[in-house]
Amino acid sequence: MRTLIKQTVEKIGESVVVNGWIHARRDHGKLIFVDLRDRTGLLQVVFNPQVSQEAYDSATQLRGEYAVEIEGKVNERPERLINPKIVSGTVELEATKLTILAKAEPLPFDINAETLNLELPTLLDHRAFTLRNLKIQAIFKVQAVIIDSFREFMKSQDFMEFQAPSIAPATAEGGAEVFEVKYFDHKAYLTQSPQLYKQIVMSAFERVFSVNKVFRAEPSVTTRHLTEIVSLDAEMGFIKSWEDIRDMAEQTVKYILQQVGEKCADELKMYNISLPQTIEKTPTLSLREAQEKIFQVAKRDCRGEKDLNPEDERDICAIIKEETGSDLVFIYGYPTKKKPFYVYPNPQDPEYNEGLDLLCRGVEWMSGGRRINDYQQLMAHVEEWKMDPKKITMFLEAFRYGVPPEGGFALGAERLTMQILELPNIREAVLFPRDMERIDERLSQQSSEDNG
Amino acid sequence: MRTLIKQTVEKIGESVVVNGWIHARRDHGKLIFVDLRDRTGLLQVVFNPQVSQEAYDSATQLRGEYAVEIEGKVNERPERLINPKIVSGTVELEATKLTILAKAEPLPFDINAETLNLELPTLLDHRAFTLRNLKIQAIFKVQAVIIDSFREFMKSQDFMEFQAPSIAPATAEGGAEVFEVKYFDHKAYLTQSPQLYKQIVMSAFERVFSVNKVFRAEPSVTTRHLTEIVSLDAEMGFIKSWEDIRDMAEQTVKYILQQVGEKCADELKMYNISLPQTIEKTPTLSLREAQEKIFQVAKRDCRGEKDLNPEDERDICAIIKEETGSDLVFIYGYPTKKKPFYVYPNPQDPEYNEGLDLLCRGVEWMSGGRRINDYQQLMAHVEEWKMDPKKITMFLEAFRYGVPPEGGFALGAERLTMQILELPNIREAVLFPRDMERIDERLSQQSSEDNG
Repeated sequence: MRTLIKQTVEKIGESVVVNGWIHARRDHGKLIFVDLRDRTGLLQVVFNPQVSQEAYDSATQLRGEYAVEIEGKVNERPERLINPKIVSGTVELEATKLTILAKAEPLPFDINAETLNLELPTLLDHRAFTLRNLKIQAIFKVQAVIIDSFREFMKSQDFMEFQAPSIAPATAEGGAEVFEVKYFDHKAYLTQSPQLYKQIVMSAFERVFSVNKVFRAEPSVTTRHLTEIVSLDAEMGFIKSWEDIRDMAEQTVKYILQQVGEKCADELKMYNISLPQTIEKTPTLSLREAQEKIFQVAKRDCRGEKDLNPEDERDICAIIKEETGSDLVFIYGYPTKKKPFYVYPNPQDPEYNEGLDLLCRGVEWMSGGRRINDYQQLMAHVEEWKMDPKKITMFLEAFRYGVPPEGGFALGAERLTMQILELPNIREAVLFPRDMERIDERLSQQSSEDNG
Repeated sequence: MRTLIKQTVEKIGESVVVNGWIHARRDHGKLIFVDLRDRTGLLQVVFNPQVSQEAYDSATQLRGEYAVEIEGKVNERPERLINPKIVSGTVELEATKLTILAKAEPLPFDINAETLNLELPTLLDHRAFTLRNLKIQAIFKVQAVIIDSFREFMKSQDFMEFQAPSIAPATAEGGAEVFEVKYFDHKAYLTQSPQLYKQIVMSAFERVFSVNKVFRAEPSVTTRHLTEIVSLDAEMGFIKSWEDIRDMAEQTVKYILQQVGEKCADELKMYNISLPQTIEKTPTLSLREAQEKIFQVAKRDCRGEKDLNPEDERDICAIIKEETGSDLVFIYGYPTKKKPFYVYPNPQDPEYNEGLDLLCRGVEWMSGGRRINDYQQLMAHVEEWKMDPKKITMFLEAFRYGVPPEGGFALGAERLTMQILELPNIREAVLFPRDMERIDERLSQQSSEDNG
């Protein structure tokens, strides 16, 4: 019955019924033109009183965002009137009948602009409305492809999907800030990472992945921090070395980029960006090699530092891009003591570990690495890191019964979306971003009884 | 390099390297036999001192759950020794080299039993270990297929995946119990349902779905309640009537069942169950028709009740099964006032709504229905239901700007898993179930400083 807008081009001369929203309206003398928008694109519809006086009369009421059903005849456009910018640009619908399904109040601002020039707080205050803008919709189409491509690739490599919990019993990992939940008569916490759970599940299924929420009570409002994040996690057993983790992570990211390129060509064009360049073998440097290279090439001395700071990350990415053409670079081998207890120390050089980050265009995209699989070694770290083993009993139990060499990695879906589309603020890459100051609405505006 | 166990059957006569866990060991005179388990199945390995004394000597150390690498030659088994129960039952590996990757402590109980006869609390206390049992693994393989099939079908119908938030600003829906989160200096809540968010996202993208956590502070410990659930949600605009929602829900569930049947034949066999029977057109009854039928056939009078109670659900399913052969049955048309404010009242009979449930074998599998799309009607319900419109500002904004007729549905992934596999308790259908008494470990056992 209903014809989607993108299908109209195959129905020249036929009578069809289309559904959608009034994206724009233009009156030209005795004719009313509207651009109709459905989930597949835009269609030009003409209301001509000579074709249907009744449809024309109804159309005089139409305003932006009215939801409508229109019956009409698909006409081919003459060559000079073809609009290559829209999916149905070779045709036009000559309306014979109009049904208004839902009216719209006057719009607070034009939603059909190519780019909405709104301040971020306004954009988010009106999220339910601003989501109708095509350029904003593009962000979430790209995000859906990123997440789905991650899953697709994992499945192709025989990883099993699992559901990691969001409510955790105690702050096993310590360190970063966690949210506390009132859990009946107990305290519970929101998980900061599925790390320990994915290691448990890996110990039974070998290869596992999950797409799950993680929560960080970041007390800072920056362009890169959210309190609620979609984490793409993978873990695999029976590895030969940390390089197996790197190779799997590399293939995963390359697959995601390739899928976004294929499936989101229109969306990428709207943002006028090009995808990161990859090369056959992504360069891999140890932390110390990276620091040495920054010293040699950028003439800045960060040698001996425990980590790369943001300037170091930008410099090493620029240097590697210049040298190899690759926007991606792996950095491995961080100081063992600076990282979580479960990260595997390099047996040849135990001061440094086999942890791993993937940088792209100056920013961290992924982190991961090999984990400790030997129970005795793990218990020694638990003690050295001053962890309370009672708080990770279930995790430790897995390792008492034979866990092979293993490791994994994690990517944040929002950060990847932000980086790929070169968005200035990570909040733009989330439908309903949560931060210190906002849950849907600004918290300062919440009615007072919620904050008693 | 590594050969997966299921691949060994194609490598007869070749030397291969396999990885896995010691599932079982049997000593027969001068030979040691082990069953090796990897993610693809079981393989019989024989250590013969005449083939390799060194491998044999190492093998004398092997105990259950040791993680190992074994090199050996794949030998075809004589016809009479073929084991049809295992994936590699036509071959056997003659070991030439054994490497122990990780040892295991003595096991607390046999993990290789076909069925673990453990009390549920013990099963869950040792979750990290009990997950190694093949019959328990089968549950999560089926669950992964259920969730993935849901997504696959939604994508095939042009639904876009979105990420619904888990932290909510206020208890917009009221009613059931919610968890409170300490959110910096504010109170926040864990979402009970993505309902209002999915309606917002639908108002921009037409067809959307999500796989997301929802949280219910159920103060009861039953076989069917969890505090953390994976909800499979869909919402679609431009429907003609509530029947469009029913049809989409029906096709979704049938697709999931069909995929589980195809991809999980071995797992279903382990549970000795058969999938629900479906027929071409799933029977659909109004609540009143169902009550009348229960009165006529089961001779119980529940006419005039506001809902079906569990006994009614079992009766109507049994009657429909008897009459039509279908294990599935839709019930629609509940008393408007008994359901949430957003459910669409039947215009011909506004005391009853166009809400919808799918029952299967006596239990609710899905609920959904048509929603109010007209802003004025929605606002009238907000008032009548005594909702605070300030708490759902963002939701209401979507409806001010033209929302077409719409509806959707939701299924719980754990309940579906439980029902399909006929598990006695929903906790068995969750990797790490959370309830009033347990988050990983029993809360009564938590160290006291966590509950200050």
